[in-house]
Amino acid sequence: MAGHSWISSLSHISLLLLILSSSSLAAPNSPWMREARSRLAKSSQLSGSLSKRFTNGSCDTAGPEDFKAPKANVWSGLTDVEAASVTKWLFRMSGLNLTNSSKAGEWDNTLLLVELNVPNKTDVLPYIDGNASAPERWAHAVLDMRASEDPVLADILVGPLPIDSATTWMPLEYPYTKKSGGKTRNLDADSGLSYEFRCNISATIADITMDLWGGTAMCKKNDSLSIWGIDPVWQYDGRVTRWVQFWNYPTDEFDALTLLPLGLYFKTDETGRDPSAWKLEGWLYNDVFYPTTAEFRSAYFSANFTKLPPNVAGDWSGTDRRGSELPMDALPPPQAVRAGPARYSVDQEAKYVEWMDFSFYIGFTRDRGMALYDIRHKGQRILYELSLQEALAHYAGGDPTQSGTAYLDTFYGFGPYAFELVPGYDCPAYASYMNTSFYIDETTHTHINSICFFEFDADYPMQRHSTGTYVANTKNVYFTVRSVSTVGNYDYMFSYEFYLDGSIKVTVRASGYIQSAYFAANEDYGYQIHDALSGSMHDHVLNYKADFDILGKANSFQMTTFVPTMETYPWHDRPRNTMRVNRTMLKSESEGKIFYTGNGATQYRVVNTDKPNKYGEYRGYRILPSDGTCHLTVQNSSNLEAAVHPFTHDLYVLRQKDTEPRSCHPYNGFDVYDPMIDFSEFFEDDESLEQEDLVVYFNLGMHHLPHTGDLPNTVFTTAHSGVQFMPVNYYEGDVSRETRQMVRVDYGEGKKAEVKTFGQDEVKCELDMSSMEEGKDLSGYVGDVVIRKFPYDPNDPYFETDSIS
Amino acid sequence: MAGHSWISSLSHISLLLLILSSSSLAAPNSPWMREARSRLAKSSQLSGSLSKRFTNGSCDTAGPEDFKAPKANVWSGLTDVEAASVTKWLFRMSGLNLTNSSKAGEWDNTLLLVELNVPNKTDVLPYIDGNASAPERWAHAVLDMRASEDPVLADILVGPLPIDSATTWMPLEYPYTKKSGGKTRNLDADSGLSYEFRCNISATIADITMDLWGGTAMCKKNDSLSIWGIDPVWQYDGRVTRWVQFWNYPTDEFDALTLLPLGLYFKTDETGRDPSAWKLEGWLYNDVFYPTTAEFRSAYFSANFTKLPPNVAGDWSGTDRRGSELPMDALPPPQAVRAGPARYSVDQEAKYVEWMDFSFYIGFTRDRGMALYDIRHKGQRILYELSLQEALAHYAGGDPTQSGTAYLDTFYGFGPYAFELVPGYDCPAYASYMNTSFYIDETTHTHINSICFFEFDADYPMQRHSTGTYVANTKNVYFTVRSVSTVGNYDYMFSYEFYLDGSIKVTVRASGYIQSAYFAANEDYGYQIHDALSGSMHDHVLNYKADFDILGKANSFQMTTFVPTMETYPWHDRPRNTMRVNRTMLKSESEGKIFYTGNGATQYRVVNTDKPNKYGEYRGYRILPSDGTCHLTVQNSSNLEAAVHPFTHDLYVLRQKDTEPRSCHPYNGFDVYDPMIDFSEFFEDDESLEQEDLVVYFNLGMHHLPHTGDLPNTVFTTAHSGVQFMPVNYYEGDVSRETRQMVRVDYGEGKKAEVKTFGQDEVKCELDMSSMEEGKDLSGYVGDVVIRKFPYDPNDPYFETDSIS
Repeated sequence: MAGHSWISSLSHISLLLLILSSSSLAAPNSPWMREARSRLAKSSQLSGSLSKRFTNGSCDTAGPEDFKAPKANVWSGLTDVEAASVTKWLFRMSGLNLTNSSKAGEWDNTLLLVELNVPNKTDVLPYIDGNASAPERWAHAVLDMRASEDPVLADILVGPLPIDSATTWMPLEYPYTKKSGGKTRNLDADSGLSYEFRCNISATIADITMDLWGGTAMCKKNDSLSIWGIDPVWQYDGRVTRWVQFWNYPTDEFDALTLLPLGLYFKTDETGRDPSAWKLEGWLYNDVFYPTTAEFRSAYFSANFTKLPPNVAGDWSGTDRRGSELPMDALPPPQAVRAGPARYSVDQEAKYVEWMDFSFYIGFTRDRGMALYDIRHKGQRILYELSLQEALAHYAGGDPTQSGTAYLDTFYGFGPYAFELVPGYDCPAYASYMNTSFYIDETTHTHINSICFFEFDADYPMQRHSTGTYVANTKNVYFTVRSVSTVGNYDYMFSYEFYLDGSIKVTVRASGYIQSAYFAANEDYGYQIHDALSGSMHDHVLNYKADFDILGKANSFQMTTFVPTMETYPWHDRPRNTMRVNRTMLKSESEGKIFYTGNGATQYRVVNTDKPNKYGEYRGYRILPSDGTCHLTVQNSSNLEAAVHPFTHDLYVLRQKDTEPRSCHPYNGFDVYDPMIDFSEFFEDDESLEQEDLVVYFNLGMHHLPHTGDLPNTVFTTAHSGVQFMPVNYYEGDVSRETRQMVRVDYGEGKKAEVKTFGQDEVKCELDMSSMEEGKDLSGYVGDVVIRKFPYDPNDPYFETDSIS
Repeated sequence: MAGHSWISSLSHISLLLLILSSSSLAAPNSPWMREARSRLAKSSQLSGSLSKRFTNGSCDTAGPEDFKAPKANVWSGLTDVEAASVTKWLFRMSGLNLTNSSKAGEWDNTLLLVELNVPNKTDVLPYIDGNASAPERWAHAVLDMRASEDPVLADILVGPLPIDSATTWMPLEYPYTKKSGGKTRNLDADSGLSYEFRCNISATIADITMDLWGGTAMCKKNDSLSIWGIDPVWQYDGRVTRWVQFWNYPTDEFDALTLLPLGLYFKTDETGRDPSAWKLEGWLYNDVFYPTTAEFRSAYFSANFTKLPPNVAGDWSGTDRRGSELPMDALPPPQAVRAGPARYSVDQEAKYVEWMDFSFYIGFTRDRGMALYDIRHKGQRILYELSLQEALAHYAGGDPTQSGTAYLDTFYGFGPYAFELVPGYDCPAYASYMNTSFYIDETTHTHINSICFFEFDADYPMQRHSTGTYVANTKNVYFTVRSVSTVGNYDYMFSYEFYLDGSIKVTVRASGYIQSAYFAANEDYGYQIHDALSGSMHDHVLNYKADFDILGKANSFQMTTFVPTMETYPWHDRPRNTMRVNRTMLKSESEGKIFYTGNGATQYRVVNTDKPNKYGEYRGYRILPSDGTCHLTVQNSSNLEAAVHPFTHDLYVLRQKDTEPRSCHPYNGFDVYDPMIDFSEFFEDDESLEQEDLVVYFNLGMHHLPHTGDLPNTVFTTAHSGVQFMPVNYYEGDVSRETRQMVRVDYGEGKKAEVKTFGQDEVKCELDMSSMEEGKDLSGYVGDVVIRKFPYDPNDPYFETDSIS
């Protein structure tokens, strides 16, 4: 996430929301907007139909079908009616003194969020595993309580739903280690004033910015410069200190702001809510610090002052096609197609999916975006929850803004930035989609087609074996659910893949614009990649939660390590240099912070020791980093302090507790010495990890040292990280043997080859490739569809979005 | 590679060859054999045609076209005429005293191999980079000189070609560290007699084998048991010691021999060529060693002897479909199709390929299979050579056969086992293919369609970026060249992938049957996975050569490491915990053995420091392990001794020398204390690595701890390893910006989305899916097509294969 402070006079949070709401919304009555609404209103999904013969004629790819989840989805979010009723109810609580966000100033309280409070696992299991009724529904709301010298963001619960006379609200505190009544201080309460403060400072050197870059940042509409900087702000000694940098706005239509640093920085003390008490504390240019503006001005206008060049947008910073034509590139490349109906079932309303022997429910929250729940294989739960927790992008640099940057992206939220996916690009042309919603400013915004589902035939098989007399070969057809969130400059592509052998792969890939550094004094932190630009080194570390339930809740964590050894055997008279397997179990949480061993020597498994297989081996799932990952390089980060703990190791194993549902809070950066969730505290009670309900947190990460190939955008082929969950001794054999998508060819000995296809249908039909083109028709691409929550009219929920901003 | 000694009375090497030649060859005059010949005779390839509009109507996927490599392929092997003439010439050398292999006994000399001697880089560069003529062609032959008390395998050179009066032969010695005139001892010269020796021992306990397993191994046609064991054989104290085990033959058509160990072992001393001097040295059963047959018999027939169960083939060991039907699996899954002509060019004769801005030549050898040469991007060479060197499968176990097994698979050879690929399974249905050839028994065998080429559109894009006003997205279309070699029980799938961003990925995946252990006393070395079966722990370590030439031959090796640090800056009054990049260069070969650093902290790059980019950064290619890899766990392996050195580290950096063309010799296992190539000696001269011609050897590896999911076969989804070569600061920006396969959608602000497609053709045609089915028609699947080299008749090269065995 890069800063987005080029729009002044709004709070940091509102700023980000405005980006979403201001530019991507259409006039409500345009024809294509009606089309978009119609896509929203009805399910656009295909679900599989029963087997059909695929004979000559047109391929039949259609076939939507009624399909119902076995249970209601208790994680999928509030209905529009629920959210509206909670919003209305909270606005009536006079003690909260809420103001409509469109009218609120710095000293008004607003309602930042209304969404489902994800129910406790303890309350859910009797429902999904038994005959108990569904758990009570409660709303989770966030209040931005700014009408105070000490502004706070307050997590509260409202419920039970539906709203009636018994409805109450209470502070939401139990998931947090900080015992503050669910409140954290809001260091951004005056971010609009803060930007004005910066403009005023900038104005004092407008002659210099004009001289250096031909532009100014004065909080005017024609500003050609932006001023933003570190995140989180410095919080030591009880002060609030900011470092900010000047940036060039792109002069074209591309989003290259984060490639255009200008290398002039200043530091402010913005402690407290009285802007008149805020102070400028100095300037930095070309690695020289000037404590006052006078000193900076004096130096600047001295004879020997070195002026450095700006970074300016150009062809190099746009993503459009450029350069020489590639040979034969005018011909269409191969593409994946589906010549028959979808082979999976989606209950759009319940957000429930079945593919082959897998099933799962989908949840979606503002902070963390898509989450999967109750992932089962062959009817048996493997994971209760599999979800992103937080994405850290920790930078370093020779300048204070890069050095001081450690984005915790749930602050911005993965939900609001899960844009519509691009068919044929983000997902195959034949993919199915699901919508997602998020709450902003008393409205529910819907991103159409922001989760996709598709089957794919990998470019390599699942299994093969050749001999002199036969060859056997099985297709590797897998199923993917995917969402993409673009948090500012970076696009995170989140994929969950399901395989015929029972394995599950979690992948994150990164593209989009790097946040770069001005090149002065940055040699130890990056390559110079353009005229005055340095690729700013940073670690992406994405923390995930994997709540395994292997044959029930009581699980253990086994480590199996390949070790070199010298052994003596009864069958030989001298010792032998060989290797063996050491098996150990984690005993308690004090052992639960894990670095992957060197050379990949250790295999990590969640097992159930009470339910061994018939050979006495523990059934379980292995956790295998499959795609290059890492934890955070920085030790005892000065930027994150106590908020760093979820990122310092590769794996964490903990006992599941309803009071520890997640590793991070979106406002952890507002109080880094005492964050809402201090993940390290989860380990302090040192609970047993032997046959307990275990939760594994794992990190996917990338050390990114941007180079010229990252211009204009980082490419997915190089920025990726993944982990695979594999059944190990879980089944009696390889379950991919169940698929028909295999072949055996017996050949040789003078005979014509004999081909066994195991009941596969031969696809003999004409596929209209135009239907694939239509599948990726992008003319209806749309931003948000907005449903107002307050005031809410269920008969006309859509409204003209210009009215809210 | 598992042992294959179930056919008795032939040498070990001939045995393997017989497997290839005996069962997979057809009667030469059958109709489908004529079809196979016709496929062999003419190019079956498509190369791309120029751009066409794809309008309504049938999709045009055809279009073979003349395409010629810019230079002759100096690595592609001998012509049939060359190989035949060398064979004929050598048979006339009376001093060699060669006997036709079909008639040869243990004391006859035979000609094991005739193929191209890969020319020296020094001799090739003036040709491929300049106007020099092609280097002289020399044949590399291997003589099996068994007419001696000290049998040797001799590498010789024959040339220059074509054969004329000036032709000579000489020992091939310069590529080997062992200065033995190109000769290594042959410990398998009497392998047929050795198997008879084992049968005779087995016969002495036939009552016991009948009692335990209902079968015998007596070198008879109806043997139901096989006896084979360690590889390499033990060589300490100047003796040749073998440990062998009884195995059950499968009772069905599947190749599950290596899943059927029986847990009875014996040890022999087979030093020297006189079988009458060979000795039985003891028996092992259930972890108890019996020095003599009498002691074993006595124990066996005692009252308290524990008899353990056998492993017997069954449904569990076959690969056919079994188990419950998967939902909707009767419907056809998605598949990749090509609705237009191929977008790459293949010169079948020169084995030269161009795709987009990449080009390369293909070489193929008996030992190492497919190799790529002169890999260029945008006309500039990136790699002179990229090739597999050796594949080690190092086992460990509580029994002597598993403990003693460390297959060096080039002994068996990757060339002869590169079987025909299965269209639609090993490669997409629309892939193009190339044939490969290998020499056996005075004949050239051709595996039809054993290398495939295809473009593929990944299930995720190359690049994307969303904003509130536009989304930009680029397809990730890549090009793959692939071969599969099944060396006994294991199928290795070798892929080289080329990407639009200039990166290259090398992947190996493993499937097929594991070699397993009998379960007694194996707890520390594997899981119990079936009734009397243990999954035998093993390390796969595949050594590759990557001869980089970055902007010329003079290159350096840079390591760039993310390190945590505490730093003090001019802009802050207290130290900060952050990170920085340390850059170092390898100075000389003594620093050239590299373990990957923990947490992926270090980036490894081949750079050219003489040719920095305009910002002063070194242009280069990064070497990134991308898919989980490892080096050998065992330290100072008792099995491999001095032959272990290429497998002990992750990366090796050396100065390129014509006298060090490869890291391993296929017969290294015949003299493990003094192998033909002792890789460690390459480092002893400690040559400079600064701006020299560098060669990188890297290992791809997998720690494999087989579990029930490996039954019947290991699946590719879990057994894989890869490395990626990425341009870093090599180009001025991301070169994938050159493709047309991208889109930008401008949207929002009440407007209908505007879609820019950058000249992409929309594909509007009907694709006959039957053509995809035909593309994977397997009824013509064929084993080898054989061309006799001696006597050779160029007008009728095919012959009835029964005549040779």
